[in-house]
Amino acid sequence: MRIRHVSPSDIERESFNIIWEELESRGRRYSPEVMPTILRVIHTTADFDYADTLSFSDRVIERAQGAIRRGAHIVTDTNMTLAGINKKSYEKYGGRIHCFMADRDVEIRARQRGVTRAAISMEKAAELQIPLIFAIGNAPTALIRLIELMENDVIHPELIIGVPVGFVNVIESKELLMECDVPFIVNKGRKGGSTVAAAIVNSILYNMPY
Amino acid sequence: MRIRHVSPSDIERESFNIIWEELESRGRRYSPEVMPTILRVIHTTADFDYADTLSFSDRVIERAQGAIRRGAHIVTDTNMTLAGINKKSYEKYGGRIHCFMADRDVEIRARQRGVTRAAISMEKAAELQIPLIFAIGNAPTALIRLIELMENDVIHPELIIGVPVGFVNVIESKELLMECDVPFIVNKGRKGGSTVAAAIVNSILYNMPY
Repeated sequence: MRIRHVSPSDIERESFNIIWEELESRGRRYSPEVMPTILRVIHTTADFDYADTLSFSDRVIERAQGAIRRGAHIVTDTNMTLAGINKKSYEKYGGRIHCFMADRDVEIRARQRGVTRAAISMEKAAELQIPLIFAIGNAPTALIRLIELMENDVIHPELIIGVPVGFVNVIESKELLMECDVPFIVNKGRKGGSTVAAAIVNSILYNMPY
Repeated sequence: MRIRHVSPSDIERESFNIIWEELESRGRRYSPEVMPTILRVIHTTADFDYADTLSFSDRVIERAQGAIRRGAHIVTDTNMTLAGINKKSYEKYGGRIHCFMADRDVEIRARQRGVTRAAISMEKAAELQIPLIFAIGNAPTALIRLIELMENDVIHPELIIGVPVGFVNVIESKELLMECDVPFIVNKGRKGGSTVAAAIVNSILYNMPY
C-alpha cells in the first residue's frame, strides 16, 4: 500500500503543518488572531481559496470569545452545521445551539408567507431575546432577513458568521452584511457551506484563552 | 438593496441553470447518468473543480439505485453527512442510515487499538451483515479500512462514495479505492467533505426512476 502510517493523534497536527507550509509559501501574512480560523477552514475544505476570501471585522475573535463566555446561544441555518459544532466544548460555557429549520411551525409560516424556512428561522431566533451568535452556512435568505431584523432594531447579534454557499444572492448578501455595524466573519464570493460554518465556530472555541 | 427577489421554489432551479450554463461554457460533456450528481455537488460547494475530479465507476448510478430499491442501508463516517441526507426520501425504500462515530464502544475500541474511530466504525458496520452503501466524507482511515475489509472478503459493499477531505493519505486512499472491484464514486484529489457525501447520496435519490 502507498498509505503512510500516521497515528490518530498525529493526523490533525500533520495536516495543519502542511497547510501552514503551503500558506507560508504563498507569502501572505495573517494576524495571529484570525490564523487558527483560516487554518481550520482550509483543513475542513482542502481549499486554499479561503485564505484569500475569509474576511473578519475588527477584533471579531476576541469579541466572539467574550460572547461565548457570557453564555451566548448559537443559531444555525442547517442541521449539518448543528451536527458539526463541538457541542460538548460549546455548552460548558452555558450556551446552547439551535437550528429551527425542521420545525413544523417554521414550515407552516414559510409556506403561508411565500418565503424560505431559513428566513422564518431567523425570525424565530429573534424571539428568543437572548444574546445570539448566528452561523449561516447555507441560505443567503437567512442572512438577508438577519440584516433586515438588525436594520429594524429587532436583534443585535454578538456575531454573524456569514458563509452561505451558492449562486443566487449569495455574493450580494455577504457584501450587505459586511456593511452592517455587527461583528462578522464572512467568506466573500460564492463559496462557503455548513462544514465551513461549523469549522469557524470550532476554531473560535478551540482557541478560547481559558 | 442589491438583492433580487427570487421565490423560494425558484432558487434551486435558478442555481442549477447557472451551474449548467457555466459547465456548458467550459465545453465539457458528461454522461446524462452522472450529470445530476455533478450538478448537485457543485450546487453544494460552488466549486467547479468537482466537474473535473468526480470519478464514477461503470453504471454506478444505476447500480446504486438498484441497491437503494432493495433496501440497502447507508453507513457514514460523520454525523454531518447523516444530517445532510434526505432521510424521509431514503427510508421510504426500506433502508436506514447509520453513523457509529460517536458510539461509546467505538471510542473504546479505537483507543485500545490505537486506530481512528472512523476505522472502527467501518468494522462495526461490517458486523451488520446486510447490503451496505458507504458514504465517506471525512476520514481516509475509514476508506483504508474498507479496502482492507474487502480484500479480506469480509464485506462486499453495494457502493462506496469516497470523498474524504484533507492532507494525510487522502489522495492515496482514493486512488486505492478506484483500483478495487467495487462500485464507486470518488472525488480525486484533496477535496471532498461531509456536505459533498450527502449531496451525492441525495442526487442519486432525487433521480430514482420510480
